[in-house]
Amino acid sequence: MISEHYKNMLSQKSVIREMNAAAFEMGEKIGHENIFNFSLGNPSVVAPEAVNRAMVRLIGQTDPLNLHGYSENHGIWEVRCRIAEYLKKTYGLPYTGDHVFMASGAAGALAHAFRAVVCPGEEIITFAPYFPEYGPYVEETGAILRVVPADTHSFQINFEAFESMISEKTGAILINSPNNPSGIVYSTNTIKRLADILYAAQEKYGHEIYLISDEPYREIVFSGVDAPCISSLYDNTLMCYSYSKSISLPGERIGYVAVNPACRDAELIVHMCTQISRGIGHNCPASLMQLTVAEVLGQTSDLSVYEQNAAILYEELTRMGFSIVKPGGTFYMFPKSPIPDAKEFCQKALEYQLVIVPSDSFGVEGFFRIAYCVPTETVKRSIPQFEKLAAAFF
Amino acid sequence: MISEHYKNMLSQKSVIREMNAAAFEMGEKIGHENIFNFSLGNPSVVAPEAVNRAMVRLIGQTDPLNLHGYSENHGIWEVRCRIAEYLKKTYGLPYTGDHVFMASGAAGALAHAFRAVVCPGEEIITFAPYFPEYGPYVEETGAILRVVPADTHSFQINFEAFESMISEKTGAILINSPNNPSGIVYSTNTIKRLADILYAAQEKYGHEIYLISDEPYREIVFSGVDAPCISSLYDNTLMCYSYSKSISLPGERIGYVAVNPACRDAELIVHMCTQISRGIGHNCPASLMQLTVAEVLGQTSDLSVYEQNAAILYEELTRMGFSIVKPGGTFYMFPKSPIPDAKEFCQKALEYQLVIVPSDSFGVEGFFRIAYCVPTETVKRSIPQFEKLAAAFF
Repeated sequence: MISEHYKNMLSQKSVIREMNAAAFEMGEKIGHENIFNFSLGNPSVVAPEAVNRAMVRLIGQTDPLNLHGYSENHGIWEVRCRIAEYLKKTYGLPYTGDHVFMASGAAGALAHAFRAVVCPGEEIITFAPYFPEYGPYVEETGAILRVVPADTHSFQINFEAFESMISEKTGAILINSPNNPSGIVYSTNTIKRLADILYAAQEKYGHEIYLISDEPYREIVFSGVDAPCISSLYDNTLMCYSYSKSISLPGERIGYVAVNPACRDAELIVHMCTQISRGIGHNCPASLMQLTVAEVLGQTSDLSVYEQNAAILYEELTRMGFSIVKPGGTFYMFPKSPIPDAKEFCQKALEYQLVIVPSDSFGVEGFFRIAYCVPTETVKRSIPQFEKLAAAFF
Repeated sequence: MISEHYKNMLSQKSVIREMNAAAFEMGEKIGHENIFNFSLGNPSVVAPEAVNRAMVRLIGQTDPLNLHGYSENHGIWEVRCRIAEYLKKTYGLPYTGDHVFMASGAAGALAHAFRAVVCPGEEIITFAPYFPEYGPYVEETGAILRVVPADTHSFQINFEAFESMISEKTGAILINSPNNPSGIVYSTNTIKRLADILYAAQEKYGHEIYLISDEPYREIVFSGVDAPCISSLYDNTLMCYSYSKSISLPGERIGYVAVNPACRDAELIVHMCTQISRGIGHNCPASLMQLTVAEVLGQTSDLSVYEQNAAILYEELTRMGFSIVKPGGTFYMFPKSPIPDAKEFCQKALEYQLVIVPSDSFGVEGFFRIAYCVPTETVKRSIPQFEKLAAAFF
């Protein structure tokens, strides 16, 4: 019988998608160039040229049976080793190929991490504001997602609330720093305090509590911002990475899970991921994409555009009267809505052709997300529109 | 806590992988060229040249932000439309883009199909001999896989046993024709009879029973073999397709679910697949791979090699005394073991450097699988070894 569960999910509309659809509809009427679409987290800078060059070279020089052939269940061994080597060099932890599992983007990486270290019925704790897809990602595993209310003054962790929620049932903590939607980077102090609490909780409850660190924005950190390597501060960490944002390959679905070598059962967890794949129809990312990313390790798209956009928007919007915790990375910022109802505010913004997303689906009320992964020119042209919007509220 | 479920799965060894590992180990000792490895179903003929040409052209001519960008949740619309057009032209059914969901190979396609039309607790019936991965594929959805015993005389469907197993709880039937491991193609008569039973059962039980048709070998059919379009004979059919075998791209993980336009809720099922993706970390196959296959629709690798290999092996092995149901397609055949214990027989074969897989894990005892996706030269060189093996038993 047709699944009522998935059928019902269709009626739960995504606010992000709805705002994007509104932008498209408006664009069809008045011209897409007149719409300031800040709704989607889609990279606006192209992949480094080395990416396409590597692909063409691989296609030209590799035996097609190897190039397009099945990779091992964990991913291509040489690719895993080269990624491990890169991580070791960059973060100083003794990763080897045995600690890396190739996955289809961050979504694929998280799907494996959740199933490997959290059992159905256990709880995964995350922190508002958070990426709304964490809801269905976790629900499907049979675990329970619990959300710690936001610290809206800093968008670091609300430790008081967190400590009251951690319990015997806690299987893992899920963090995303640099953060979508706030743009905030968790500081060394934040991660150290989190680690201290987790070490104590492991002791108290007598079982591992894993830290699942969703890091697709790892390379998008602005100058002078304290952005620690999370895995280096807590042993039982599973780093979930994607090349979607750093080298602008979101559609190619390529990323990995890197299990901290100091994590309990680290290599076993990587092996378990191959078993998880069997049930969820995963079977590795595309071979060509695996081989390609191994050729461009450490390279990034021109990420300076995002920092430039952030600086312009932060300066202009604070000048207009908006209250904003200054973003430390990503291509998002998360200003306070001038009225308590952020949805109403975002509807009003549409009248000025500004497409922004209310915070409610990110687990906090009264804020809105600006995804400024757009050309700087567009950001500049949007400022007069934000002026008019601000004038209607301040 | 670490998942005992997935940890335990690691100890359930795959016989296919074990035989392949034995082949490798032996090859290291006596030279890989002296091993006749018939254990893996990995294409041995290269992708059509047009595949690499299309990739290079796409990389050179497409705006990188579009080329590597997120595709819509269902897959790239233009790709879906072109596949639908191809299916319509080839099979005469009125497919449109709305009936096609892009998936990461057949494993991804099946993961979506199972979840869309079968609810946890319902049964999926398949027919021995069957691809062993169907076990974990189905188990993870919460549905129950039931296996109809083989008709070992023809490897068509054992209808008597099937009719005794179909019930109120039957949610879907899962077939794989051309079949791995038997190499048999279900005839028009077989599919028509199956369809008649399913139409009657739908009537009797008052709910849909879907036919999930796993068709990665669809194009590998030998001359003169009756190979009907399954979807055209039963309305509620979900065709799960992969480009792994027909154009030799197994590592690129590209395929689709095509829901018969006459299927109840056909377009809804495709929409539901987008919701299923969210929970299993899927999010579309790689954009470049989607765009590439749309450029080479209807093309295949040089599949004649498989037919040639089948002819040589069938003739020689039957001459030696092996009993074989003649394969109609794929790159497998499934001879009867001369002794009841196929595992023992396959161990004995290793003494002659012949790596073949006992039938037990395919749901039937006393047979063995030969995967003849190897160079014809290798097949020819293997014949004297099969002679020696046969001489030890006949």
